[in-house]
Amino acid sequence: MSDQSPFAAPGNEAELEEGTALTPKFDADGLVTCVATDAKTGDVLMVAHMNAEAVAKTIATGEAWYFSRSRRALWKKGESSGHTQRVVEMRIDCDQDAVWLKVEQQVAACHTGRRSCFYRSVPLGQNGSAVKLEFHDERVFDPKAAYRPKA
Amino acid sequence: MSDQSPFAAPGNEAELEEGTALTPKFDADGLVTCVATDAKTGDVLMVAHMNAEAVAKTIATGEAWYFSRSRRALWKKGESSGHTQRVVEMRIDCDQDAVWLKVEQQVAACHTGRRSCFYRSVPLGQNGSAVKLEFHDERVFDPKAAYRPKA
Repeated sequence: MSDQSPFAAPGNEAELEEGTALTPKFDADGLVTCVATDAKTGDVLMVAHMNAEAVAKTIATGEAWYFSRSRRALWKKGESSGHTQRVVEMRIDCDQDAVWLKVEQQVAACHTGRRSCFYRSVPLGQNGSAVKLEFHDERVFDPKAAYRPKA
Repeated sequence: MSDQSPFAAPGNEAELEEGTALTPKFDADGLVTCVATDAKTGDVLMVAHMNAEAVAKTIATGEAWYFSRSRRALWKKGESSGHTQRVVEMRIDCDQDAVWLKVEQQVAACHTGRRSCFYRSVPLGQNGSAVKLEFHDERVFDPKAAYRPKA
């Protein structure tokens, strides 16, 4: 995978943290973590992963591309559902192993039909094993219809 | 590590996504990804990891605890620097392998002295290898002073 990466290898700590070169620190699987937030509300929409090709395609096109760990495949967000993400701003973190995308989300980010994947809150101040999750977001689309194979 | 987890094992897809039980889907290293955002501005402050104990302690105390992959150790955010994170709201994602904390951040989240770890943007619409990162956030503390060993 590193053979296909257009990015230089990460340098030392000072170069990674204070440099102007984008040298993502991919993990053993060739991935960095990516957080997508709603550019208007600041809500976290989803957390996913990018390989070098997904990072490069996102930069080149201004649309969010990811790498699916379960399908082992490059993936344009919304390629099946139409629920694409236009990138308003892309940021990289101090040690260059995480990406933050501020996006304009079409319809919804979550495959369950909610706008955000983070539709349940965890009540605080109690024993973790006894926690009862609280639902917040209603579905904005029917996942069965959105992901139905095209005729 | 799973022996010490207070959480039940993840169920099937429907239970994970539509259930009210918190059953985090820890990866092979016993970790979930955690995104901390500023509860006031919505800015992403940092991305880190939590093991079962960090998740449980965060829920119990309402302060952010993480697991350091490099130090292989449980870690209370701010335990050295004083830059703690009070959790305003905690959320879990659809497949329960990522946590979102909305926090009140003391001083700054990043060890480099910036409020957010994501202090550099990646210009879009060009070849990834030619990208020149743009700096946004000024330092709000001197990292050399904040992490100096106490006398």
